[in-house]
Amino acid sequence: MPSISKKGLEMPESPIRKLVPYAENAYKQGKTVYHLNIGQPDIKTPQVALDAVAVHSLTTIAYTRSEGSDAYRSKIANYYSKHQIDVTKEDIIVTTGGSEALLFAFGSIMDVDDEVIIPEPFYANYNGFSVASGVKVVPVVSKIEDNFALPPIEEFEKLITKKTKAILICNPGNPTGYIYSKEEIQKLAAIVKKHDLFLISDEVYREFAYDGIEHYSILQEKTLDDNAIIIDSVSKRYSMCGARIGCLVSKNKEVIKTALKFAQARLSPPTLAQIASEAALDTPQSYFDEVKEEYVKRRNTLINGLQEIDGVIVAKPKGAFYCIVELPVKNADHFAQWLLESYDLDGETVMVAPAAGFYSTPGMGLNQIRIAYVLNNESLVKAINILKEALKVYKD
Amino acid sequence: MPSISKKGLEMPESPIRKLVPYAENAYKQGKTVYHLNIGQPDIKTPQVALDAVAVHSLTTIAYTRSEGSDAYRSKIANYYSKHQIDVTKEDIIVTTGGSEALLFAFGSIMDVDDEVIIPEPFYANYNGFSVASGVKVVPVVSKIEDNFALPPIEEFEKLITKKTKAILICNPGNPTGYIYSKEEIQKLAAIVKKHDLFLISDEVYREFAYDGIEHYSILQEKTLDDNAIIIDSVSKRYSMCGARIGCLVSKNKEVIKTALKFAQARLSPPTLAQIASEAALDTPQSYFDEVKEEYVKRRNTLINGLQEIDGVIVAKPKGAFYCIVELPVKNADHFAQWLLESYDLDGETVMVAPAAGFYSTPGMGLNQIRIAYVLNNESLVKAINILKEALKVYKD
Repeated sequence: MPSISKKGLEMPESPIRKLVPYAENAYKQGKTVYHLNIGQPDIKTPQVALDAVAVHSLTTIAYTRSEGSDAYRSKIANYYSKHQIDVTKEDIIVTTGGSEALLFAFGSIMDVDDEVIIPEPFYANYNGFSVASGVKVVPVVSKIEDNFALPPIEEFEKLITKKTKAILICNPGNPTGYIYSKEEIQKLAAIVKKHDLFLISDEVYREFAYDGIEHYSILQEKTLDDNAIIIDSVSKRYSMCGARIGCLVSKNKEVIKTALKFAQARLSPPTLAQIASEAALDTPQSYFDEVKEEYVKRRNTLINGLQEIDGVIVAKPKGAFYCIVELPVKNADHFAQWLLESYDLDGETVMVAPAAGFYSTPGMGLNQIRIAYVLNNESLVKAINILKEALKVYKD
Repeated sequence: MPSISKKGLEMPESPIRKLVPYAENAYKQGKTVYHLNIGQPDIKTPQVALDAVAVHSLTTIAYTRSEGSDAYRSKIANYYSKHQIDVTKEDIIVTTGGSEALLFAFGSIMDVDDEVIIPEPFYANYNGFSVASGVKVVPVVSKIEDNFALPPIEEFEKLITKKTKAILICNPGNPTGYIYSKEEIQKLAAIVKKHDLFLISDEVYREFAYDGIEHYSILQEKTLDDNAIIIDSVSKRYSMCGARIGCLVSKNKEVIKTALKFAQARLSPPTLAQIASEAALDTPQSYFDEVKEEYVKRRNTLINGLQEIDGVIVAKPKGAFYCIVELPVKNADHFAQWLLESYDLDGETVMVAPAAGFYSTPGMGLNQIRIAYVLNNESLVKAINILKEALKVYKD
């Protein structure tokens, strides 16, 4: 039998998805499962986007331009200008989700064995995209006791080698909920300028900034025009994760020219989803105000609830809709599986994402989980109570 | 300024897309351009698929399973069984177009510097996916005078090294229009079994088989269960190229398990397009009968018309909707650009794809173009006449 590639063997299983078979068994046992494991919000997609799809007048679902339609990219540029990010449609390539934008960025700037420095814990699929691209992740540890703030810049400096091509951040952070300050972004700007690196910023949670914090984009930092690459997506912004529309944004013409070749090879981003995404840009501000209010309420419920559980440590997220939670267990992976397989409280249980998969350093995050607060307040209260009761009876 | 990757520099420009700026200039000059350059059919998408999108009842455009929804994969398995391909939903991963299926296949079975043997000319974007995957294309030449039939199997044998992991075919062929016979597939089966290789078959044009020819899939060849990987797509079948839905099919459990990890990293194929694609499976047979009849008419118009032009050689396609045409010019790349920039017949011109980009061997196909017969008969007649008149005045 012909054999699988080394790359294929090295591809990590998604920590967000790998418990799915256990969840399915739990359903079969008749359990209710509260899904805190995946960033699939229950929030409704803006009506304007849903309507645009329903009234489509297509007779042929045809390719668009590889970089996305001109009309859509112009409207995206306009969206950015409202966020103090000064770009034109020529700086934008529409992609199949933020995932593809990241793959195009990696392919455009990194060769096999090149290195990208990423503060950990980080979005788990960065590991998968790195393996797929043959690139090496070099982690720099951010700590729960610092609320996952930017590690000291000297820690980055120590890790830079000839192979280092980029620093990658997620801001606001998945899974940490941390939002980098302007000062932190400026520290990163200085180091990437000094060493001629790219700074890739995954800003798909831009709107999800709480407690009056203003998100500061890497492209607001004018000195970074040659170095900055933004990864973006409509998935969370408009609660349309299934659309699979994102974009790559850069003022660096060579980056755009190169990423476009990757885009051309796959011909076109999804056409129906571009219709929905273009319409979504007309979403009224009231939608975001309501969504933000809802997430703040959920976050407060979650954090307050978790803090009351013995032995649980949690960093208070300032943005996005995730948090990392340290549990009084040895192996959170096993605990998460046990919750689905062997536990229920009155027929109900919880699905969480073990956090080890969000780290690159072996052994880190073993007693942590990521919680996505994507359920309504009532469900969250129940889910926290289940966790609390489960921890009382769980044996490592 | 930080630098682009070697991989990025090596990524080929799409020969199908690279003339787009010239075409846009031609529009600005007020010219009508007949597009024979890209496989974007003018055929209507089946009404059942368009309607399914219009009546969608989504309130949140959510992720589906990474491998595609169970319902959709079950229906795909049923579609295959009607084509004498015996697979279950567990053998299928839904992808973002055939493009992503090919990327997953390459990633799952090949490492950097591994080799894939491909009869050339081949679908140009195989070059792009190979560069993106770090894989080396080893071409074996098929010839216009043989109608692009399978090259002698000894030619493949000669090229097999320790690095060879797969043979990749496109059947029916883009850009050749050739359909491999059962005997040719069996020859390929024997050689991949002998050398423990994978046989990847891009069968997105399965339905487009003319002159009473029956398409023979690699998965009809029972001995290939461990070796066969089918790349498929709804793009051409239902004239919904912009949906971006395809699939990877294999009876090899390790391949599916590995490809699933790549699928999980990008979370989900497009949800709206899956709704359209699932509905498209209910397309009545009459749709295909009419489409096939239309393409046969177009092919006959095209081939008969081209054969009347002095110095033009054309292989008669048996399937798909492309043909490779040899022109009495030295540099078809230049000719194609000239058609857009400097030529018109009563304000009209033609856009074609230079064929050199469909070869991997440098210097091959320089005097060839690929024509996609995706326009109606009347437009094709005009386009052929434009080519004929243009060749009279063109100077190399």
